[in-house]
Amino acid sequence: MAKLQPQEGTGAWRPAGPGDLQELAGRITALLDAFGRCGADPDGGYTRYLYSGAWQEAQCAVSREMDAAGLSVYYDEAGNLFGRLEGSSAEEGAVLTGSHIDTVRCGGLYDGAAGIAAAVAAIELLHRRCGQPRRTLEAVSLCEEEGSRFPLTFWGSGSIAGRYAPDAPPEAADRSGVTLAEAMKAAGFGPGTHRSARRTDIGAFVELHIEQGAVLEQERLDLGVVLGIVGQRRWTFTLRGEANHAGTTPMRLRRDALAGACEMILEAERQACAYGEAMVATAGSVSAAPGLSNVIAGQAVFTLDVRHPDAETLQSFCDELYGIFEGIAASRELEFAGEQWMNVLPAPMDARLCEAVEAAAKGLGLRSRRMYSGAGHDAQVFSGSFPAAMLFVPSSKGLSHSPEEYTSPEQLARGAAALCNVLYTLAYEEEEKEKGDSQHENVR
Amino acid sequence: MAKLQPQEGTGAWRPAGPGDLQELAGRITALLDAFGRCGADPDGGYTRYLYSGAWQEAQCAVSREMDAAGLSVYYDEAGNLFGRLEGSSAEEGAVLTGSHIDTVRCGGLYDGAAGIAAAVAAIELLHRRCGQPRRTLEAVSLCEEEGSRFPLTFWGSGSIAGRYAPDAPPEAADRSGVTLAEAMKAAGFGPGTHRSARRTDIGAFVELHIEQGAVLEQERLDLGVVLGIVGQRRWTFTLRGEANHAGTTPMRLRRDALAGACEMILEAERQACAYGEAMVATAGSVSAAPGLSNVIAGQAVFTLDVRHPDAETLQSFCDELYGIFEGIAASRELEFAGEQWMNVLPAPMDARLCEAVEAAAKGLGLRSRRMYSGAGHDAQVFSGSFPAAMLFVPSSKGLSHSPEEYTSPEQLARGAAALCNVLYTLAYEEEEKEKGDSQHENVR
Repeated sequence: MAKLQPQEGTGAWRPAGPGDLQELAGRITALLDAFGRCGADPDGGYTRYLYSGAWQEAQCAVSREMDAAGLSVYYDEAGNLFGRLEGSSAEEGAVLTGSHIDTVRCGGLYDGAAGIAAAVAAIELLHRRCGQPRRTLEAVSLCEEEGSRFPLTFWGSGSIAGRYAPDAPPEAADRSGVTLAEAMKAAGFGPGTHRSARRTDIGAFVELHIEQGAVLEQERLDLGVVLGIVGQRRWTFTLRGEANHAGTTPMRLRRDALAGACEMILEAERQACAYGEAMVATAGSVSAAPGLSNVIAGQAVFTLDVRHPDAETLQSFCDELYGIFEGIAASRELEFAGEQWMNVLPAPMDARLCEAVEAAAKGLGLRSRRMYSGAGHDAQVFSGSFPAAMLFVPSSKGLSHSPEEYTSPEQLARGAAALCNVLYTLAYEEEEKEKGDSQHENVR
Repeated sequence: MAKLQPQEGTGAWRPAGPGDLQELAGRITALLDAFGRCGADPDGGYTRYLYSGAWQEAQCAVSREMDAAGLSVYYDEAGNLFGRLEGSSAEEGAVLTGSHIDTVRCGGLYDGAAGIAAAVAAIELLHRRCGQPRRTLEAVSLCEEEGSRFPLTFWGSGSIAGRYAPDAPPEAADRSGVTLAEAMKAAGFGPGTHRSARRTDIGAFVELHIEQGAVLEQERLDLGVVLGIVGQRRWTFTLRGEANHAGTTPMRLRRDALAGACEMILEAERQACAYGEAMVATAGSVSAAPGLSNVIAGQAVFTLDVRHPDAETLQSFCDELYGIFEGIAASRELEFAGEQWMNVLPAPMDARLCEAVEAAAKGLGLRSRRMYSGAGHDAQVFSGSFPAAMLFVPSSKGLSHSPEEYTSPEQLARGAAALCNVLYTLAYEEEEKEKGDSQHENVR
């Protein structure tokens, strides 16, 4: 076993140091190249819908790389793919790390795949340098996160956490009418095909992912320590006024539904800015009827997406905004109705894991900051069942779900080095450090 | 000849007095019933597209009623229909009164038709009570004003005023590809079929029309004296920002094209209100791209319709607003482009005719106000060639272009009585009163 090297800035010993960054960069680039040979879309980027041919090829490529990295590879019945490094202490929960292999249509090379590559590279380095871990380490390529083919997200992680059961999948069908159950069977998965998806033996989950925002890039940081994943509410608001002649109706006699919608959209923006950085409110779609240049809009419809990491703050913001909207509608004599069609609670990450990530970043001399994830991730599903944490690496221009996604090999290597040292802390260091994980403390 | 009756409130003698309102109401109701038997639309209201079967039936009905009213009836080559009461003084210009018989799709009973009915009823009453006029009186059923079938408006009045020439019609086609020339020929009109449309013998035009707005109703008035018809500008504005993730992009890092569009639309509304009653600005249509609830809009497009009766005011308002829009785009780092695709100049009505209308209203004890027309009318085409004036009668709820249009028989009768007395002033009273009409003074 290679001797551990001293960690700069700390007295502690860690397997990955600045000297390993170049090697990690090369290894992750090679892994992403291998994954990137699967699912290239003629329209640009990558399309790997759950259980599709491109998806199957990608899982096979991951499987080959896990095997080459000395991990014992297996699928579960849902199609999640694992590369396992057995630990010496059977009774302690396994440490799981990885991300998702599926993509949106014409997605990028990094969203999901980068976390799988970092997981394989990190465990490989740990194994070579530190030998067998005390706790079992598993790299995972989760079968579905985006919900791009079927109208449900987190099928893979949900099956592991028990939110979903592959022997009784939801009645979801893709655009061509193929059900989730049929697609799963056609790809060779489903009840009885592989080991059960449900896991009760996992002690922790750590996921590396691209930020999907521009904060790290703007602030020239290496790493984001994710304190939690935001809650989301989505509405469709409908305003009804009176369609009327644009030339003959004086301004004072109008009940202009579109002007009312514009006032609400601007107010949502103003209020969100006033609530501070963690609050975002977005009106992404709007329409007016009859929609003619010379007719005052009698009806206007717009959507609103509001996100915040704290459940109470999210609730109070939405309550206040709704009241403001009612006031605007009343002052303009507009009928007003809001339909909330999404309400996802915030998912705080595990406090002690976050500290471990920060310590790893500090030990490597990385520039990091605490932040919240404004997008959904598998970690939010796992966080309800066992301690979960996430590391964000910068994403060029904050892009994601785009063929233009880019994170440099050096940026990926810094993240992977931090991941490697977090995994070392969890799987190799003395047990007393891990006490209390079973009743894990989430970030509040 | 029946003895003229004294006009209440004035020493003047006029043919129509309060005692005639009931008779006029009955006559106009009967005429509208006759016209209303043509072009009923299964979807509601009336659809009488230029040269269609329904339109031809309607002109035949008007022709029968003009004939029954003792007028000599003829068409011109464009399809305009006239009912003529010959005057004793051939050298003086004819006095033309009437409106249009065509409708929008599923239009109402009154928009256009009410002015034709009032014209026939008024000339009929004048003839019976005052005999032959000095100046020739003609009721007219103009063949086209709305531009509903072909993408051009004012074909009928434009042919009379020389803006258009039926022997060289514009290359316009309807939705089924039939050209204006083909449709005209198929309906039995066009060069050589009837007398030439171009007229140089008209001395004045007076049109009664429903208001198409709610001002008269709101202010409980009988009559609107139209000082002019507004100018119109229409634009399509396009804003480009950056489409981005609604959850991961902090408010401060956004370039939200839709939020920018909303700010502009509200500013247009605010500025128009500040400019006073005669100014209207309307954003009737808006769209955002990609138009997804969870994606910040990278592009937004909206239309703006601005109208005002004074050319200079309209110009300066539009210039100021454009500058404000540029400022909003700059402050939000949005690309901004505005395409103006309509620019119609204001058309002032003839000042001396307006005075005659006001005197007639006063003489009948009607409650009237001066106002501008926010909608286009044939009178704006005529006003460039000879003195033109318009009388508005109230329209229930300000509706027009709707099956719900309604103006009561009593309201129509009051307007027709005023029209009758204006026609008397123009066609029967002594010539010196008419001096200077040939170089008519428009309202400034």
